[in-house]
Amino acid sequence: MSEVRYNVISGDWVVIATERAKRPEDFTHVKQKEELPAFNPACPFCPGCEDKTPPETFRLADAEGRWTVRSIPNKFSAFSPEGDVVKYKVGSRQFISGVGLHEVIVETPQHNMTTALLPRDHVEQILQMYKNRLIAFYEDPRVEHVIIFKNHGEGAGTSLEHPHSQIVGTPVFPGQVMGRLEEAIRNYYYVNFGECVYCLCLSNELSDKVRIVGENKSFVAFIPYAALSPFHLWIFPRRHVSCFGSITDEEISDLAAILKEMLLRLYIGLDNPDYNYMVRSLSPKEANSKYFHWYIALVPRVSQAAGFELGTGMFINTALPEASAQFLRDVKI
Amino acid sequence: MSEVRYNVISGDWVVIATERAKRPEDFTHVKQKEELPAFNPACPFCPGCEDKTPPETFRLADAEGRWTVRSIPNKFSAFSPEGDVVKYKVGSRQFISGVGLHEVIVETPQHNMTTALLPRDHVEQILQMYKNRLIAFYEDPRVEHVIIFKNHGEGAGTSLEHPHSQIVGTPVFPGQVMGRLEEAIRNYYYVNFGECVYCLCLSNELSDKVRIVGENKSFVAFIPYAALSPFHLWIFPRRHVSCFGSITDEEISDLAAILKEMLLRLYIGLDNPDYNYMVRSLSPKEANSKYFHWYIALVPRVSQAAGFELGTGMFINTALPEASAQFLRDVKI
Repeated sequence: MSEVRYNVISGDWVVIATERAKRPEDFTHVKQKEELPAFNPACPFCPGCEDKTPPETFRLADAEGRWTVRSIPNKFSAFSPEGDVVKYKVGSRQFISGVGLHEVIVETPQHNMTTALLPRDHVEQILQMYKNRLIAFYEDPRVEHVIIFKNHGEGAGTSLEHPHSQIVGTPVFPGQVMGRLEEAIRNYYYVNFGECVYCLCLSNELSDKVRIVGENKSFVAFIPYAALSPFHLWIFPRRHVSCFGSITDEEISDLAAILKEMLLRLYIGLDNPDYNYMVRSLSPKEANSKYFHWYIALVPRVSQAAGFELGTGMFINTALPEASAQFLRDVKI
Repeated sequence: MSEVRYNVISGDWVVIATERAKRPEDFTHVKQKEELPAFNPACPFCPGCEDKTPPETFRLADAEGRWTVRSIPNKFSAFSPEGDVVKYKVGSRQFISGVGLHEVIVETPQHNMTTALLPRDHVEQILQMYKNRLIAFYEDPRVEHVIIFKNHGEGAGTSLEHPHSQIVGTPVFPGQVMGRLEEAIRNYYYVNFGECVYCLCLSNELSDKVRIVGENKSFVAFIPYAALSPFHLWIFPRRHVSCFGSITDEEISDLAAILKEMLLRLYIGLDNPDYNYMVRSLSPKEANSKYFHWYIALVPRVSQAAGFELGTGMFINTALPEASAQFLRDVKI
């Protein structure tokens, strides 16, 4: 019989199909992969093509002064960086003008690189860039929420091969994030006697051990008890803090190590799957909130939502979290 | 500048990319379509193959006694129909045993048919079957919620070609449905002075006119003001009632007409796109709820969720609801 597990962070029930679960190996699919060049003169993110993008907003460079990571306004931005927030509300029709910030973070000069294979100190630079842009975005008073994410591969919604992440500052607080915040507050005040539900979840995962994939001084990576989809990974900081912008240099170094390790385990174990990752965080002003805890969600796109998922928000996960964690731990890296 | 529109039913903000919106025609993609036979002896849903499926739970038949629509337990059910509900809760780990009901509704004996092309009276039979199974499912005391849905095409998550829908009775009340119910209650009691937000939305859509695609005596089909994705359609009953099981024969006839019409407009206008539809309803016991209103959501799968959507629940809709509605109205059927 399947188990319907409750995800205490998202507030969703997940059907863990224990009996008809696939083996972890069944999620590997060797894609027809095109060999990419290290440099592509037609790519706007390759070195020497900097004039094809809007002027950069920040850069990190090597000892010779060549950029290693750069951020640029998104040429096809979902939001306009100019203008005031206009609000409109008549009956059921409500809108806010699409004022906001949207940047692309070019993660490396090398066109055919992937984060899993980058040196750790380079991944640290990408994370330093995330921190810099998150803090800068929240300084704009029109921005209500900031999301950092990466789309890797066509199945994860990217059209550009050159490794990049994105950061968006929205003029509204997203409903889904609000839902999780309400869930966290309810858990903190009413369910857990004043304990953060993320801290509780982390502590339970550490004592259960079976779903942990990796850990270091500052971070723990695990497939949560009620993972919404196969190989869905969470990377939680051990230190309770609500805003990613509060991360220290030492923590950035530890995060780079564990993020790279998880991506490498997926790269080898599932043969370079398409994936998204998202940094879920509140603003620097809310960094000291007692009930929210920032984290990274890493979602390999190896399954698909259909009518059941669209109509209920419940997911049917055909991979056992415990077996998937074991599989990823056993990957030789 | 884009407009960030608020979806009063789902509680989500949607970025309507007014400036970089695609033309409706750009969502048409001619797929390589295999010619299917009217009968496939290897298909478990074709007539004569009834012994390949578990015994049927209900059937509708023609004057000669041949089945036209039949329901059968799903051989690969997400839930087990036998057993008691067992609950477990220790710290952040909570589960309920996967007891529940899951049936497949075979919509027609003809292997290569599609709902858009079925005669209206046949679509009525499918809807009569939905009503019968929904009411029967809710009679099982272990069932907390019932969802009826259809997955059409690979991009919508189906693996079987033979036209079919599914109905699932879950032992839990889904978090997403709970979220919408809370939103509806909040709107009813605090925002709209005792008016159902679905009724308000319908009334506003009817006065705006521009997003209406079709209507008849009992139903209105429209692309909502804050449609979450391109060509996302809602079919609302004019009569306020919370449970689909309360539908009358006359309303079933009107629903068959408008559902078939919408599917046909998509079939012709977007060249047979993959789609899901879901019947969103409360239970017969809650049929008289003042704040919830059952409806059908019809979602062509012509766009893809990426990191922004996963991390915020917000969608970027690159089709203008008003232009999409105009496009569908203009399709010659």
